[in-house]
Amino acid sequence: MKAGYLQFKPEFCSTDANIKKIQRLIEGKEFDLLVLPELANSGYLFSDFEELNKASEEIPNGKFCNALRELSKHHSGYIVSGICEKAGGIFFNSSVLVSPEGTIYSYRKIHLFADEKKWFSPGDTGFNVYEIAVKDTHVKVGMMICFDWLYPESARSLALKGAQIICHPSNLVMPYCQRAMFTRALENHVFTITANRTGKEARGGDELEFTGGSVMVDPKGNYLLEGSLDKDECEIADIDPAEALNKDITPNNEIFQDRRTDMYSL
Amino acid sequence: MKAGYLQFKPEFCSTDANIKKIQRLIEGKEFDLLVLPELANSGYLFSDFEELNKASEEIPNGKFCNALRELSKHHSGYIVSGICEKAGGIFFNSSVLVSPEGTIYSYRKIHLFADEKKWFSPGDTGFNVYEIAVKDTHVKVGMMICFDWLYPESARSLALKGAQIICHPSNLVMPYCQRAMFTRALENHVFTITANRTGKEARGGDELEFTGGSVMVDPKGNYLLEGSLDKDECEIADIDPAEALNKDITPNNEIFQDRRTDMYSL
Repeated sequence: MKAGYLQFKPEFCSTDANIKKIQRLIEGKEFDLLVLPELANSGYLFSDFEELNKASEEIPNGKFCNALRELSKHHSGYIVSGICEKAGGIFFNSSVLVSPEGTIYSYRKIHLFADEKKWFSPGDTGFNVYEIAVKDTHVKVGMMICFDWLYPESARSLALKGAQIICHPSNLVMPYCQRAMFTRALENHVFTITANRTGKEARGGDELEFTGGSVMVDPKGNYLLEGSLDKDECEIADIDPAEALNKDITPNNEIFQDRRTDMYSL
Repeated sequence: MKAGYLQFKPEFCSTDANIKKIQRLIEGKEFDLLVLPELANSGYLFSDFEELNKASEEIPNGKFCNALRELSKHHSGYIVSGICEKAGGIFFNSSVLVSPEGTIYSYRKIHLFADEKKWFSPGDTGFNVYEIAVKDTHVKVGMMICFDWLYPESARSLALKGAQIICHPSNLVMPYCQRAMFTRALENHVFTITANRTGKEARGGDELEFTGGSVMVDPKGNYLLEGSLDKDECEIADIDPAEALNKDITPNNEIFQDRRTDMYSL
C-alpha cells in the first residue's frame, strides 16, 4: 500500500488558508493512507480562548473535517490529521481518521505538552485501533499525537490492540522524537508515520520553531522516509503492512508472547 | 560520582581466565559504580548442559562472586556483572550487584533471547532497585540484562521504583540497542550503562559476533561514553546521579505524574 506524510506550516487561526495549503500539497498524490501534522487546522501558539474558539471546530461536521472528507474521497485514500477540536464549552487537541466513504474516527491527545494544558482538556478516548480497507485487505491503524511518543505506553497500547501502522500527527519543537521513533517501531514491530509541521510561530514574548523532518519507520526500525527540516512537502512510499503482523524477533522470540506482565511494576 | 563500563571478550567456560582479564582491565581504575558484560564468568554459546554446569556457579559464594567482592573492596566501588548462575539443578542468566562491604544482590534475566531459552530458566526476581552508598549520599540502582532493553517495561519498572542508574550487562549481537538506549534514558530520565562484550564465539555450526560499543547515557539522552566496537577497555566518567531525580520535561510536565495509567491497555 502507499503511505506517507504531508508536512507544512499551518497559518495561525485560519482554517481556510490551511485547507488551501493542504489541497495544494496533496494535489496529484496517490496514497492509501496519508498523515498530516498536529493542529493542522489551527496552528499552535494560542494566547486566549477567543482565538482557540475561532480556530477550533466540532467533529465530525466542521469545515476542516468536510474538506478532509472531500480530499479523502477524491484521492480514494484515508487521511489522518491533527485537529483543534471544540466540544461544547471545552477543547481537545485531537486527530481524526477520515475514510473515502466519509466516516470519521477521532482520538483526543492523552499526554498534553507544556502550555497545551492551559487550553485543552486531557484526552478521554483511550488508544483505539481502526480497520481501514486497502485494496482487498484490511489494515489496522492507530493514532497518537506528538508528545504521546515519549510515553512507551502509547505505542505499546496501540500495538497490543493490533495496530499495524501508528499514525502520529506532530508539532515537535525538539529533535529527539524523530531519532527515537525507530525504537517505538522496533519494540512493537509496527510501522510509524510521524508527520511534523514546519515553521515558526511567535506571539507575545513566546517563539516556537517546529522541527519538520517527518519520518516513516518500518517494523525493523528502518527509516523509509525522512522529511526536510523546513519545507512544505508530501512524501509517500510503498509499504507492506503485513510485515507488522509478524512479531518474531528470533525463532524463539515473539515480542508479545514474551512479555512478562507478572514481572512488571507499571 | 564516577561510573562506567568494562567491556571484554570472555574466555568460554573459563572463570579463572575471565577473572584475570577483568583484574587486568580494572587495574588502577577509580570508580563508584562499574558495569561488566552479561555472562562475564562463562561466555555465551553453550552446546550442552555439562558445559553450562562447569561454567556456572552459585550466588553468592562461588569463585567469580568472591573475585568481584575482592575487586569491589579493593577499588572501594560497586560492581555490577553478568554471571552464569547455577541454582540447584537449574541455571539462570543473572547479574549481581556487589558492594565493597561484600553484600551481593542478584537479578535473573526476565526476557531470555533465542537459544538462551534452552539453557536458562526465565528470571523470577522481578525488577528491583537497591541503594548504594556513594560518598555522603545514597543512589538507587537497578539491573536489567541485554534483551530486556527491547521491552520498555523493563526500564520503566526500574525507573518507577526509583532507579537513578540502570545497569545493563549485555552480550549484544545487533547494533540497535546502543542506538536505542537514549530513548530508554530519556523516557525515564535515568542514567543507563550498557556494558557489552566484544569478540566472536563459534561452536558447532553456530557463530556469533558481539558488537561491543558499550554506552553510558544521561537522563537527557546524551551519550556520555561510547565504547570501541572490538577492544577490551574500561571507561569511566563523572556523573551527577541527582539529575535522575528531576523528572520535569517542562514546567508543566513531570514524566511520571503525567502518566495516564487509566488510558493504557498494557
